Amino acid sequence: MRRYGQIIQLKPEYEGIYKELHRNPWPEVNEVIKECNISNYSIFLKDNLLFAYFEYEGMDFEGDMRRMGESEITKLWWEKTDPCQIPISSAGENEWWVNMEVVYHLD
Amino acid sequence: MRRYGQIIQLKPEYEGIYKELHRNPWPEVNEVIKECNISNYSIFLKDNLLFAYFEYEGMDFEGDMRRMGESEITKLWWEKTDPCQIPISSAGENEWWVNMEVVYHLD
Repeated sequence: MRRYGQIIQLKPEYEGIYKELHRNPWPEVNEVIKECNISNYSIFLKDNLLFAYFEYEGMDFEGDMRRMGESEITKLWWEKTDPCQIPISSAGENEWWVNMEVVYHLD
Repeated sequence: MRRYGQIIQLKPEYEGIYKELHRNPWPEVNEVIKECNISNYSIFLKDNLLFAYFEYEGMDFEGDMRRMGESEITKLWWEKTDPCQIPISSAGENEWWVNMEVVYHLD
């Protein structure tokens, strides 16, 4: 199992919309996430920063992320959530949520 | 069980020291953390931001955090780590690591 921490910015004017969407996430979107071998997934907010933590138990993270992005229901969900977010300034050209480096872990 | 996400800034000039300390954390410090009912504890870094995720299974978080802070070995560890960190600008007067708001969770 591998742990991921990811960061992205939330546009302040979209905070209410983003939180409301995630208070009632679409069950089909959650199902796709689980099918992509992700579990114990939390998103945290402070000021304009979103932090995501999740655990990945598959063998092909890039492949599973590609599958997730190709899911029609996920595309529709991201049409709602993408306008709320903006990548951090150091994000790469094709990065959205940016992976953070694990510097410490205690089971 | 309650999940916590916390954020703090890392002073860029201390990145190497902070990462080295956490590559080889003191076993006694890890023991105190576990005794304070914290598990699955990870710290992530991106640019000058540190994000901590952990799970708390006790009944008195403030009390357990107080106990942790009163531990002599923890105090010595924090003497090493505190100079590396600086609270985010919106932190309260007595806040160091700042708790984030959970906006989404999927088991």
